[in-house]
Amino acid sequence: MLIEFSVVPLGTGPSVGDSVAKVLTIVKESGLPYKINPMGTVVEGQWNDLMKLVKKCHAAVLKDCERVLTNIKVDDRKGKTKRIDLKVKSVERRLGTTLRK
Amino acid sequence: MLIEFSVVPLGTGPSVGDSVAKVLTIVKESGLPYKINPMGTVVEGQWNDLMKLVKKCHAAVLKDCERVLTNIKVDDRKGKTKRIDLKVKSVERRLGTTLRK
Amino acid sequence: MLIEFSVVPLGTGPSVGDSVAKVLTIVKESGLPYKINPMGTVVEGQWNDLMKLVKKCHAAVLKDCERVLTNIKVDDRKGKTKRIDLKVKSVERRLGTTLRK
Amino acid sequence: MLIEFSVVPLGTGPSVGDSVAKVLTIVKESGLPYKINPMGTVVEGQWNDLMKLVKKCHAAVLKDCERVLTNIKVDDRKGKTKRIDLKVKSVERRLGTTLRK
Repeated sequence: MLIEFSVVPLGTGPSVGDSVAKVLTIVKESGLPYKINPMGTVVEGQWNDLMKLVKKCHAAVLKDCERVLTNIKVDDRKGKTKRIDLKVKSVERRLGTTLRK
Repeated sequence: MLIEFSVVPLGTGPSVGDSVAKVLTIVKESGLPYKINPMGTVVEGQWNDLMKLVKKCHAAVLKDCERVLTNIKVDDRKGKTKRIDLKVKSVERRLGTTLRK
Repeated sequence: MLIEFSVVPLGTGPSVGDSVAKVLTIVKESGLPYKINPMGTVVEGQWNDLMKLVKKCHAAVLKDCERVLTNIKVDDRKGKTKRIDLKVKSVERRLGTTLRK
Repeated sequence: MLIEFSVVPLGTGPSVGDSVAKVLTIVKESGLPYKINPMGTVVEGQWNDLMKLVKKCHAAVLKDCERVLTNIKVDDRKGKTKRIDLKVKSVERRLGTTLRK
C-alpha cells in the first residue's frame, strides 16, 4: 500500500525545515521506497511497517515541541505493488505525454 | 492524542453507508471515547491503540472491495487529555456562546 | 455539498484557540449550516459560497501570523441536500442505535 | 501559495485513472506550475486561480459519476514564491544529500 504523510510542529515558528529534515532522515533509514514532494512524503510498504515509520517520525518531531499535527493518507489496492512508480506512469501513458514530477 | 479518520471503499457504488456502519461498530466496540461527525470519526487515545483501531476498520472495509482510501489526522499535544470534549468547549468559552455540534 | 475544513497558523505557539475562535465567528456570520467537531468544522452549501467562506477564514488567520495551513475535504453527491444532518442519522438507522456526536 | 489536491470519484470501480487523466489535462492547460506525485498534484499560484482550477477538475470528474471526494491542502507563507521547487531543495541542502522525487 501507499501512504502520503506530513508531520507539522506547532509553536516553533513558521519554518518547519528542521522537522522535515528529521523526518526525511528517518524515512531514508527505513529502507522503504519513498518519494518526497513539496507537500509531503509518499512511502510504499505494509501497514505495520508504514505506521511504525510514521510513529517514529511523529515522536521525533514531538520531542522538540509541545504539539504536533500529523496527516496520513492511505491508498490500499489489492494485489498491486510498485505503485509508487506505476501510478504516475499509468497517467502519463493514458495522456501520451510526460508530466512534471 | 486525538485522531479523526475516515475509510472510503472504491468501486462499490456512490453509497458507502455499509462501510461507515462497519467502521462505527468497530469503533464502539473499542471502548475508546469517540464522536462521529458528517465527515469522519474522532477518537481519543494512545498512538498504538488508535492505529490498531484504524487498521481493523481499514481491513474490515477492504474485505468487501478492491481498494480503500483511509485518511488519518493526528493532533497530539503534550500533557493534555480529555481534549475530545475540552477543545470545542474552550472555543465556546472564548466566544461566550454555544456552537452547533 | 459538504466540506470539512481547518485553518492552522504556524509560528504562534502551540495553542491555536484564537484562530479557531476567529474562524467560528466568520462561519456563524455566514449563515450557512455548520457543525463544529474537535478536529474541524463541517459546512454545507454550494462550491462558491463555501470556498469564499474558507478564503475569508484563511485570510483572517494569516493576518496575524506568517504561515497558515488550511485543509479542505469536499464531499459532493448529486441531488442530495441536508446531508449535514442526514449522513449521521443514516448510520444510526443502519446500526439501530444512537452514536456520540 | 501551494496546494496539493486530489479528486476521487465514487461508484465507478477501483480504477480512477480516467479521472486522474482528466484532472491532469486541466492542470496542464491552466499554465500554473505543477508537480504530480503518486498521491496527488501540487500546484502553485494565487488563491482564486487555484480554487478555480480545483473547481474545474472537481466538476469534470463529477460529470461522469454520482459522487466525488476532493481534498485540498493549502500551505500559504507570506512573501515566499517558487516554493514548488525551493521547499524540497531546502530540505536537501539541510541534509547535504539528494532525495528521491
